[in-house]
Order: sequence, then structure tokens, then C-alpha cells
Amino acid sequence: MDERGLHRLIGTIIDPERLEDDCAVIPCGNGLLLVASTDMLHEITDFPAGMTDWQIGWMAVAVTLSDLASMGATPGQVLLAVGLDRPERLSGIMVGARDCCTMFGAELVGGDLDAHQELTLVSTGLGTVSPEHLVRRRGARPGDIIAVTGPLGEAEAALAGYDQHRKELLEPQPRMKEGEILGRAGVSAMMDISDGLAVSLYDLFAVNDCGFSIDTTRLPLPAGVPEDEARELALYGGGDFELLFSAPPGLLPVSGVRAHVIGEVIPERVVLADGEPLERRGYLHAWDG
Amino acid sequence: MDERGLHRLIGTIIDPERLEDDCAVIPCGNGLLLVASTDMLHEITDFPAGMTDWQIGWMAVAVTLSDLASMGATPGQVLLAVGLDRPERLSGIMVGARDCCTMFGAELVGGDLDAHQELTLVSTGLGTVSPEHLVRRRGARPGDIIAVTGPLGEAEAALAGYDQHRKELLEPQPRMKEGEILGRAGVSAMMDISDGLAVSLYDLFAVNDCGFSIDTTRLPLPAGVPEDEARELALYGGGDFELLFSAPPGLLPVSGVRAHVIGEVIPERVVLADGEPLERRGYLHAWDG
Repeated sequence: MDERGLHRLIGTIIDPERLEDDCAVIPCGNGLLLVASTDMLHEITDFPAGMTDWQIGWMAVAVTLSDLASMGATPGQVLLAVGLDRPERLSGIMVGARDCCTMFGAELVGGDLDAHQELTLVSTGLGTVSPEHLVRRRGARPGDIIAVTGPLGEAEAALAGYDQHRKELLEPQPRMKEGEILGRAGVSAMMDISDGLAVSLYDLFAVNDCGFSIDTTRLPLPAGVPEDEARELALYGGGDFELLFSAPPGLLPVSGVRAHVIGEVIPERVVLADGEPLERRGYLHAWDG
Repeated sequence: MDERGLHRLIGTIIDPERLEDDCAVIPCGNGLLLVASTDMLHEITDFPAGMTDWQIGWMAVAVTLSDLASMGATPGQVLLAVGLDRPERLSGIMVGARDCCTMFGAELVGGDLDAHQELTLVSTGLGTVSPEHLVRRRGARPGDIIAVTGPLGEAEAALAGYDQHRKELLEPQPRMKEGEILGRAGVSAMMDISDGLAVSLYDLFAVNDCGFSIDTTRLPLPAGVPEDEARELALYGGGDFELLFSAPPGLLPVSGVRAHVIGEVIPERVVLADGEPLERRGYLHAWDG
């Protein structure tokens, strides 16, 4: 059973609408909504070899901030639970986490500490957004354009040996400013692309009543990679921190956001790349059994 | 270096005042404060042998709700990150987590899912409290009484073979109602006793400018355990979910809360049990090296 199969199971236990988005949405009573996200990372699966402790702390915060960005939220606070394998790692991890918070306007306000055989980090991010600027995964309408905020496949390119993309892999930059601006501008649906573009398009597909058609010649590709390989990485590679969104035609350009239109929302219930069904493949956790 | 030594290190990286309490306190803008807590549990250290998956899910939520209770907060939402070793465990864990939320008036609103060699759960709880009813660890004053909300040492008694206390060990009941009522009543300092009474008294000692003197003959003891052993368990045993608080003399009794006065706050900077310095010993995570 893969991760999404297990998510369906969870949808039988808690409100399935709660599972549609990157964050939980909580009325705050002051005209704002609180959005909350939690993300678990651990050494073997999530931290590429050669990462420093500082980069590990940075990344743990970046993933949860990216979830806030995908809802159009302003970042607020971060909690970090650390399952620590060796005490000498704590300082680097915490400084990296704090620096990522500071860079994007959040504050590291607390956490938990535990001894663990394998280093495990769980970051929880809180942000706020007004109800009219909240963006969900649901909301795409036929005729909308589909766009992304930057090159895709860079993190996977670094894993494939293209060292010019190591920084994107190891010190990812969540698109906080872009998420807020796009939320205020009125995009119709949004998410972050952590598991690759193809999987993300199918995630949008699952909660919308329309389809998506992309033109792979329009994908912003990782620099310095042969074009065929670059396109493969852009479609199926994981680890990117760009935002994928739909918007009414004519909304773009939006000042302050570099957006690349890659396709359009269609009425047919299908996900197409260059007119052919797109393979649903990418970075998915899988369990045996 | 033990857990508290590492906490001191963290205090050099993030605001040390943030580390004093069980929860982070966040202004919410509507006259209320948001309190947020995150707790990491994993199989080897935290889940006694023989626990069911349902009980594991229950406990993961109970620990974070207990943190909210210790600040006087009303529980709101819980996020649960699950590092899952075997997919067939997910259902039991999620139902246990949801049931604990439901029992205490919280809602399970989201989480994350990851594959993990050792089962690891991280729960994050959000609650609200008005500024005048918020209770912190800091605030005890000489002359205040010290009290607890129920018997101490029951969880550790179960580990020692006293099976009549298995339920307290495996299905702990966070003192939500008691925490809220005590916050409204005006207790001066509060925390939950997860690592044993002795360690908790020293935790209060560390953030207050006074001392604590308890009378061990007044400790509410686990039933059915020989008195000497029971007193040892009550002082040093971990895994309890009772609240420890100080309050102005005359505040108790408070309607709706069963409280046991066990001592008083003193001006001297010392923690005493029956007039002698209390050993700082209990349940502490420790790392080699």
C-alpha cells in the first residue's frame, strides 16, 4: 500500500475534507484563519548523504513553511520535535532551523527532544491568512491556466550528479512571498510540488472536478542538463519546493512572482502531457505488504 | 548530556523564556492566546510492551493534551505525524488518536505519514486560553500551597507488576477539565508530571525564585502497593498524567477538581521532602557521550 492508499484509509477515520490540503485550516475568531502543517523527516529517507546538520535543520523548517505558502498564508510560528541520535548534532540542527525561520519571517517557538536511533525531525508550522485569500487544492476551473513558480527537477538533478543544483537540493527556498502574493491576487487552486509535478497534478486532479493538460515544452527545466533528461526530472523528480497553481486566464503576470505557464485546466477528467495521458509516477513512499 | 542539559543548549539558540513552559504561547489577536505543544514518542522508549495500536494512538494524543491542560487551556486541534513501521498498524493508531481527541473535546485535523523503521508518533496540540487564565510554570510565591490532582506513581507501579494500574499506564487520562478550572480559579504556577514528581518539582524550582517543601506522608499513593514502595514510586516514577500546581492558601477547595495538598512554597532556594533535600531523580532521557 502506498502513502496515498493509507491517506484514503485515514479519510475513513477523520473528516476526509481535512486531508485535501497541505495544511489544516482553523477559524481563529479574529477574522483570520489559522493554518497548521506538520511534516516528519528522517535521515535515511529524507536527508541526502553529505548534508550538514545545519542544512538538515533548515530543510525541516523549509518543508513546513512551504506547506503554509501553498495555502497563501503568512508564516508565524514553528515547533520542532527532534529525535536525536547523537547529542553533538543538536546545535547545528537548531541553528539551521532557526535561521530558516528568520529568513522567512517565522519564529521558532518550541519543540520537543527525544533520543532516537535514527535522526527524526518533525516540524509544525502555524500561519495566518484571511478567508478571502486562502487558497486550497480544490478550486481549479476549466479555462484556468496552470503555472509553476520556478524550475522543476533541480533537486533530483543534483541527486543525479548535476552538482550545480546542490544548493536547491540541500538548502531549499520555500516560496513564502510568492504564495502570499498569489493568494491575494486570486489564484484558484494551489499546492507545493514536493513529490514531483506528475504526482502533484494527480493530487490536484483527485480533489477537483476537471482535468489538467500540460505542454512539456513549456516546463522550466534545470539548467545544464540535457533536454530529454531535464524534462524527465521536471516531470517526475521529487524534492522541489516550487508552487503549482491554477489561475483565471489574464490574472498573470502578477507583480513580484516569476510564474511559468505550463498548461491549462480542461473540462475532461484526465491529466494530459502533450495530449497523451501523463504517467502517475514520482516520489512516493511505499511499504511492503 | 541529559535532556535538560540539551534544553539549556537550545536556550542559547532560541529565546530561553520560550523553553520554560509545556507549550508555546502565541497571541491570537482576538483577546485569546493560542498555546501549542508538540511531543515525540517512539516505540522502544515510550510504549510499554503489550500496548495495543489503539492505546498507542490514544497516548500520543494524551501527552500533548496534558501539556495544554497544564497551561489552563481549552483544547482545540491536534495534528499527528506518524512514522509507520507496518501499514496494518495505521488504522488502530488513528482510531485511538481520534477517540482521545473526541473524549477531551479536541479535533484531529491533520498530520503526516512517513515510513519508519521504528514506530514514531509526534502529536501537536493547539488550544486557547484568555491571558488572565493562562498558567505558567513561573509564578509560585512563598506561602502558596503545592498540590497535585491525583495519585502519583500509578504508571510506574504498573511497570513494577501491579496490574491493577495497567489502565493508568496504557490509557492515561489528561486532566483537561482540571487544568481549565484551576486556571480560571487563579492558581499561581502549574505543570504536568510526566517525568515524576521529584523531577517536576526541580523543573518548577528552575524557573521560580523560591523553593518547595513537600510532606511525603501527604502524597496520594497508588492503591494496593506497600507503603514504602508506593512512596518511592510516587516521588520518582514517570508516566503520570496528573497536574502539579501552586496556589494561594485558601484557594482550595475548587469545585470540580480533586486536589491533594502535598506541601508549600518556601522562600529558601531548596527543594525539600520531609525537611531534607529531595533527590533529583526520575525519568530522564540520557545520551551517552
